[in-house]
Amino acid sequence: MNKKNDSAPGVLLTAPAWLEKLTSGRAIVIRGAEARMRFVIDLSRRNVERRSGGPFAAGVFEAKSGRLLAAGVNRVEPMELSSAHAEVMAIAFAQKRARSWDLGRDAARPMELVVSSQPCLMCLGAVLWSGVTSLVYGASAEDVTSILGFDEGPLPAAWPRELRRRGISVRGGVLRDEAAAVLELYKKKKGTIYNSRKGK
Amino acid sequence: MNKKNDSAPGVLLTAPAWLEKLTSGRAIVIRGAEARMRFVIDLSRRNVERRSGGPFAAGVFEAKSGRLLAAGVNRVEPMELSSAHAEVMAIAFAQKRARSWDLGRDAARPMELVVSSQPCLMCLGAVLWSGVTSLVYGASAEDVTSILGFDEGPLPAAWPRELRRRGISVRGGVLRDEAAAVLELYKKKKGTIYNSRKGK
Repeated sequence: MNKKNDSAPGVLLTAPAWLEKLTSGRAIVIRGAEARMRFVIDLSRRNVERRSGGPFAAGVFEAKSGRLLAAGVNRVEPMELSSAHAEVMAIAFAQKRARSWDLGRDAARPMELVVSSQPCLMCLGAVLWSGVTSLVYGASAEDVTSILGFDEGPLPAAWPRELRRRGISVRGGVLRDEAAAVLELYKKKKGTIYNSRKGK
Repeated sequence: MNKKNDSAPGVLLTAPAWLEKLTSGRAIVIRGAEARMRFVIDLSRRNVERRSGGPFAAGVFEAKSGRLLAAGVNRVEPMELSSAHAEVMAIAFAQKRARSWDLGRDAARPMELVVSSQPCLMCLGAVLWSGVTSLVYGASAEDVTSILGFDEGPLPAAWPRELRRRGISVRGGVLRDEAAAVLELYKKKKGTIYNSRKGK
C-alpha cells in the first residue's frame, strides 16, 4: 500500500484540547471495569460541561495492564461529522497510536473498549472491525432513547451474542446510573439531538 | 459549541491523491442510478489498481441534479484505520463540503449515497446518521462474503425496511456484476482481508 505522498486535504478527527491535555504526556493506568468506567463517565461529563460535543465518551484500554491507549468523546457538532461518535474517535486514536488497523494484532495484549453508553448500530459495527476483544458499557440504549430521544438504529436482537461469537466479550450496565446522569445533564443543558433522518 | 482552538493532533481522513485530482476543481454531474454506479465502480477499480485501499468506493450525489458532492474509497490499510470504509469517507468529505453533520438539512436538495457494494453493519449505521435520503448499492453482502471472505456483521434481517421506515429509500443490485468483478480483481491481486476479530 502507498502510504506516502498519497494524501490530500481531508477531514481531521480531533479530540478537544482539554482531553488532549488530560491524556497526553503521561501514562494513565486504571484497573477494573468500574474504575475505567468512572474515568470514561467523567470524560463524558466534561464534554457536556465544556460544550465540546455530545454526552458520550469512550476509552481503549489494555485489558490486562489497564493502560489507557486512547480516549475519545463525541464530536459530531463541533466537527460537523455525523460519524464522530465517541467509540469511532477512541478507536481511531488508539489505532493511530498502535500504528495498526487491528487492535487485536497482538494476542498477548488484548484491548478493551469502555463506553459510557451502549454503542449504536454504527458503533457496534465499528467495534467488530476494530480488533478489541472486550466491550464494557454503562447506560443502556433504552436510557439514551428515553432520556434524549436519539434513535440508536435497528440493533440486531441478539447483538451481544453476535459479538461473543466473534470473540468479543460484552458487559453492560456498569455504573449505569452515573452514566445516565450525564445524559440527564445534557438534556438539562438543552444539547442538540442530532437525528438527521428525522430532521427533515 | 466551541469550534476554534479546540483541536489537537488527531487523525486525518484522506482521499488518495489520484481521487483528489480526479474530483477537485470541476463539477461532476451524473444523472441516473446506473451512470452514478458506473462512476463509483470505476473508482473502486482504480483503488485496487493503485493499491490505495480496499475494493470499495462510494459517492454522495445531489439526488435531483446529479452533482457529486464528494467521493470516497476504502482506506483501511493505508490509513491504518478500521473505520475508513468508503461510505464513512464519502460521508465525511460530503459533510465537510456541506459544512453540516446533516446532509438532510436542506429538504429541497436531498442527497443520495451510491456505493459499489452493500454497506456493512457499521456503514448502515453511518448511513442512518448521515442525513442522506437514498441508498443505491451494487454488489451484495453475499458477493463480498463469498468472493472475499469479509464478515459484514450481523445485519438486521429487515434492514432495507428499517431504512425506509426512517425515510431512506434503498435500491440494490445496480450493475451488480460489474461491481463484483472488482471484488474478484482484488482477490486476484491478493488484497488483504482485514477481519480483525478473526485475526487472532
